[in-house]
Amino acid sequence: MAYDAIETPFGKRDRIVGGSAVYVAYAASNFIKPVNLISIIGNDFADDEVRSLEARGAVLDGVERVQDKKSFFWSGKYHLDMNSRDTLVTDLNVLGDFNPQVPDSYQGSDFMMLGNLSPAVQIQVIDQMKTRPHLIAMDTMNFWMESALPDLKRVLHMVDLLMINDSEARQLTGEYSIVKAARKILQLGPRFLIIKKGEHGALLFHENKVFFAPALPLEDVFDPTGAGDTFAGGFMGHLAKTRDISFENMKTAIIVGSAMASFCVEKFGPERLKEITRTDIDDRIQQFIQLVNFDISLV
Amino acid sequence: MAYDAIETPFGKRDRIVGGSAVYVAYAASNFIKPVNLISIIGNDFADDEVRSLEARGAVLDGVERVQDKKSFFWSGKYHLDMNSRDTLVTDLNVLGDFNPQVPDSYQGSDFMMLGNLSPAVQIQVIDQMKTRPHLIAMDTMNFWMESALPDLKRVLHMVDLLMINDSEARQLTGEYSIVKAARKILQLGPRFLIIKKGEHGALLFHENKVFFAPALPLEDVFDPTGAGDTFAGGFMGHLAKTRDISFENMKTAIIVGSAMASFCVEKFGPERLKEITRTDIDDRIQQFIQLVNFDISLV
Repeated sequence: MAYDAIETPFGKRDRIVGGSAVYVAYAASNFIKPVNLISIIGNDFADDEVRSLEARGAVLDGVERVQDKKSFFWSGKYHLDMNSRDTLVTDLNVLGDFNPQVPDSYQGSDFMMLGNLSPAVQIQVIDQMKTRPHLIAMDTMNFWMESALPDLKRVLHMVDLLMINDSEARQLTGEYSIVKAARKILQLGPRFLIIKKGEHGALLFHENKVFFAPALPLEDVFDPTGAGDTFAGGFMGHLAKTRDISFENMKTAIIVGSAMASFCVEKFGPERLKEITRTDIDDRIQQFIQLVNFDISLV
Repeated sequence: MAYDAIETPFGKRDRIVGGSAVYVAYAASNFIKPVNLISIIGNDFADDEVRSLEARGAVLDGVERVQDKKSFFWSGKYHLDMNSRDTLVTDLNVLGDFNPQVPDSYQGSDFMMLGNLSPAVQIQVIDQMKTRPHLIAMDTMNFWMESALPDLKRVLHMVDLLMINDSEARQLTGEYSIVKAARKILQLGPRFLIIKKGEHGALLFHENKVFFAPALPLEDVFDPTGAGDTFAGGFMGHLAKTRDISFENMKTAIIVGSAMASFCVEKFGPERLKEITRTDIDDRIQQFIQLVNFDISLV
């Protein structure tokens, strides 16, 4: 949970709520409640934002509030192609002392999504669960591959599903081919792997099976910040709602996650996610079906 | 019809048959015969290659053979990501004097694919048809946008379908957004538009509808030369076989074209296309169905 400053070719926001947990919560809560958050915030985190999350079905019992520090802050600027961005500022603030505690009320949670933090922190959260969740998914990034690879390899053996982007999959394995990279990652622990390709969609790998879902072609990608986390929230939300972690249902979850991500990029930060209704989501999922569905009988 | 010299990170060929017409013919002839070619070749074009094309169902009555010149020759080198290449040599040779003549035996052809040549030559071929084909599709490239835009705009008004890649669509319209570029192109004449994104798949636009088909995730892309033309050949071959140019059937044709292109890149030039059987093609199309198909009832 954080504040971001974002500049894109379409405009800027000097201060807007962000962070993986916020995007995951706004996306997942359309499908399942409660969404139990674990995070840390500073004295600057607005009560309005807390109430907005709670109104959507997020529970913040696991969110530590630090009175004498500020929330994590990130500032970035996107280039015209929206696939690359420069990080201008990263102020760890409260995140430097993050020591996550799983509240008793969260015990028994069946679906766990570990945001992109240090593998040691991810392990710490898993270790506190008295019964192992039905599905544990995690995100990570190149920074941890460079600075904490042994811990990263440990946590990979503890989770069921890894979500990373294509360049991270290449870096983790040293394989340029995404198919070869996926095969290597599936030998590192996770039974399921999602490789995100941004505007070029996402791939799901499991055993020798692969599924592809495109991103929705949009007139404008206004702000990609949080799209990956929103995808994760929609994906996990659908799985938690249906309580079905088969490969077949994960395909559907990827379509749902892609639909949620397509909303996220339409406005700055999570602004669009705060507005959308169940009808908007159903309409968008129908657009995805139209986009990829064809009549097999014509082949 | 040409000879190419190709270097990729996986190896090289100093001299291998190529050219749009060759790839289109090898791909389309799996679905429809005859495939009537119009091209020009020099004294170096091997009889073996002519016989190989004829054996597949290509007709070369419209191919002019020039005795005192050589065939068109292109040489290129691909970078590791296979999305970018450097052209090392372009020898026009016979192509400098290409004055295409449509043989009487080709009159009545219902499906016409115009390869990437000057718009003036493309117009010349259309103008020779006594009855307009059922569907006219064309390819083009940035070179013609820069050197022959008025002619290009003329031919765009004469065709039904344009196939170009994403960077060409952006250049033609000045729009970075593919969706906005597509809308502009559909106002330039063609009722159908296919935007090819290489390893990231292809989009079909028609009126306010859009369909997306991915490229097959492959362990290695060995040589991308001719993949776009092979896609076009599979696409047109399926349409010609089924004689159905509805949007719904074009979706299927895109899947078929994508399957054919996925073979093309597995070996140098058209080598793989010369080998494959109907069973290989059916298996590959099934792989595409597995790749993108999901159970709508689970949404």
